[in-house]
Amino acid sequence: SRNIRLAVIPGDGIGTEVVAEGLKVLEAVGTKIEPTHYDLGAARYHRTGETLPDAVLDELRGYDAILLGAIGDPSVPPGILERDLLLRLRFAFDHYVNLRPVKLFPGVATPLAGTPTENIDMVVVREGTEGLYAGTGGVMRRGTPHEIATQESLNTAHGVERVVRYAFEKAKARPRRKLTLVHKTNVLTFAGDLWQRTVNRVAEEYPEVSTDYCHIDAASMFFVTQPERFDVVVTDNLFGDIITDLGAAIAGGIGLAASGNINPEGAAPSMFEPVHGSAPDIAGQGKADPTATILSVSMLLDHLGLHDEAARVERAVAADIAERGAARSTQQIGDDITARVSG
Amino acid sequence: SRNIRLAVIPGDGIGTEVVAEGLKVLEAVGTKIEPTHYDLGAARYHRTGETLPDAVLDELRGYDAILLGAIGDPSVPPGILERDLLLRLRFAFDHYVNLRPVKLFPGVATPLAGTPTENIDMVVVREGTEGLYAGTGGVMRRGTPHEIATQESLNTAHGVERVVRYAFEKAKARPRRKLTLVHKTNVLTFAGDLWQRTVNRVAEEYPEVSTDYCHIDAASMFFVTQPERFDVVVTDNLFGDIITDLGAAIAGGIGLAASGNINPEGAAPSMFEPVHGSAPDIAGQGKADPTATILSVSMLLDHLGLHDEAARVERAVAADIAERGAARSTQQIGDDITARVSG
Ligand SMILES: CC(C)[C@H](C(=O)O)[C@@H](O)C(=O)O
Ligand SMILES: CC(C)[C@H](C(=O)O)[C@@H](O)C(=O)O
Repeated sequence: SRNIRLAVIPGDGIGTEVVAEGLKVLEAVGTKIEPTHYDLGAARYHRTGETLPDAVLDELRGYDAILLGAIGDPSVPPGILERDLLLRLRFAFDHYVNLRPVKLFPGVATPLAGTPTENIDMVVVREGTEGLYAGTGGVMRRGTPHEIATQESLNTAHGVERVVRYAFEKAKARPRRKLTLVHKTNVLTFAGDLWQRTVNRVAEEYPEVSTDYCHIDAASMFFVTQPERFDVVVTDNLFGDIITDLGAAIAGGIGLAASGNINPEGAAPSMFEPVHGSAPDIAGQGKADPTATILSVSMLLDHLGLHDEAARVERAVAADIAERGAARSTQQIGDDITARVSG
Repeated sequence: SRNIRLAVIPGDGIGTEVVAEGLKVLEAVGTKIEPTHYDLGAARYHRTGETLPDAVLDELRGYDAILLGAIGDPSVPPGILERDLLLRLRFAFDHYVNLRPVKLFPGVATPLAGTPTENIDMVVVREGTEGLYAGTGGVMRRGTPHEIATQESLNTAHGVERVVRYAFEKAKARPRRKLTLVHKTNVLTFAGDLWQRTVNRVAEEYPEVSTDYCHIDAASMFFVTQPERFDVVVTDNLFGDIITDLGAAIAGGIGLAASGNINPEGAAPSMFEPVHGSAPDIAGQGKADPTATILSVSMLLDHLGLHDEAARVERAVAADIAERGAARSTQQIGDDITARVSG
């Protein structure tokens, strides 16, 4: 089989450290990968003023997949790297599915008292290209007592239907076959109506999937009090952002939360990244847990059709997690998981 | 002292049940109140098509305060009662502070393993009149493959500054003197910039208050993993909605979460209500916990300057909670707390 052409964007802060471990595992699993590193993020921005040059974006389009570490640094004003680099990639490559499993691995302590491992096992299908992330809105009379600042949530039938269909397919393939729409239909009535109608309509094609609805506020509560309510969750971009960090928290922490920004049709490369950020406070100290990145590598392999390899990586992670004792460095965790993958 | 003129809106579902207990406690505390009941909610909507007639709104304006149970019923399409009744009251009476304490009472089990009681003690100051709750937005080509649905978040210097000032005052009066802005400045750049600049500017007038910032996604995680990070939280309407349900969950459940919709200048009556909804699934069965309403009554008394009475109600609730054993009915809990208030 031909080599996998992988674009690697380590990014900022701990991004570099965790990506190095992800690549180690990827090599150990025996895939023929050709990684090409791209220097994008805060350092490049400060050096050249560039976030994501058009030529680089075009080049990235030619890869089979992208592995990303983390983007963002306090030295750059909020929104610049997020919008012009991370979100630009998600939008340009039409990553309309932001797939985020929320699964408690055996042996991992959840902060939720008395919650059995099997009660936390869901997949959040977060829309990735619309909603409040569209970036539309503006400001008038900035800095005056009469300032007005707006943000717009844009939702299209096209955008909602395709991610809802994806979520139904996911739900159909899981044992519980349950799909929960999370939104705020009682306040965001225009967008909520579109989401709810779309779920209702697509549900008719999936009689084997049971559907449910939960307001985002109630869902946040249930993530903590009754996580077993959820199997597949489909939600918009912003609600998905919030609820997957909460999901990471209940499933043992942001150090374990993986994600895929997926273009299901393969019209552009999909991009895999840990849910965590660049964590400048612990960067360069070998303290970051690379597990989230390694699980993202497993999702990447799965997406490329390398299901056995994906499963091997996930099993290695599960085994490593189950035996965690004393604190280990980023590199040590990477080495230990690599050894299990190779062994 | 003159009688307190109180408008009572029991509303839907368990609203009626919990409000009855709240009133019982209010009478027992020895305040001279004159309650007037208003029949608003799903039943009236079905009977007359009315949600909140203008004449009723005008009448309500004349009261010293409003006690509200819960609004909403599945028989009414999402958004109608919320928007035309509950949110209309909040907007018409300019309840720009939605005050929601998140406090773990001794004896209450938090779902968070190993979290000491004192680690969960914060106040969320949620903006109540702007943001995505403005209800602006629309839909085009509804029901077609080309449908577009939008929602707009409207944020004004006026609206943000007044709630931020209120939050700084709250923070100044608390022992820890810490204020955290929760937003999503890296994505909602226009609104986020207004919020962050406002906090920075007002902070200069409060050198004794330390300020902090946290993205909504990270905050949701920290509510679960490190709730002790938070003292006073100030945030927008939607983020406040989400985070206070999460707050209720970590502080022992929605049955204990109180709130005040406050017009600090007293230009219109403030309105006190439990954070929970109408819970149609358990309505009429005497299963609802009236404690959230009773704590809202305590906030109401405090708002009216009856600080001793407010403290007595809160102490009675704390004592009741500390000794909770077998399940009791709504009425029994109300009676028990009433006995402590009178005794
Ligand atoms: C960094 C930020 C723009 C991003 C988001 O909000 O999507 C992050 O929080 C995430 O969840 O991947
Ligand atoms: C019922 C609903 C409109 C309301 C809100 O979103 O504000 C409720 O969730 C609350 O928190 O008081």
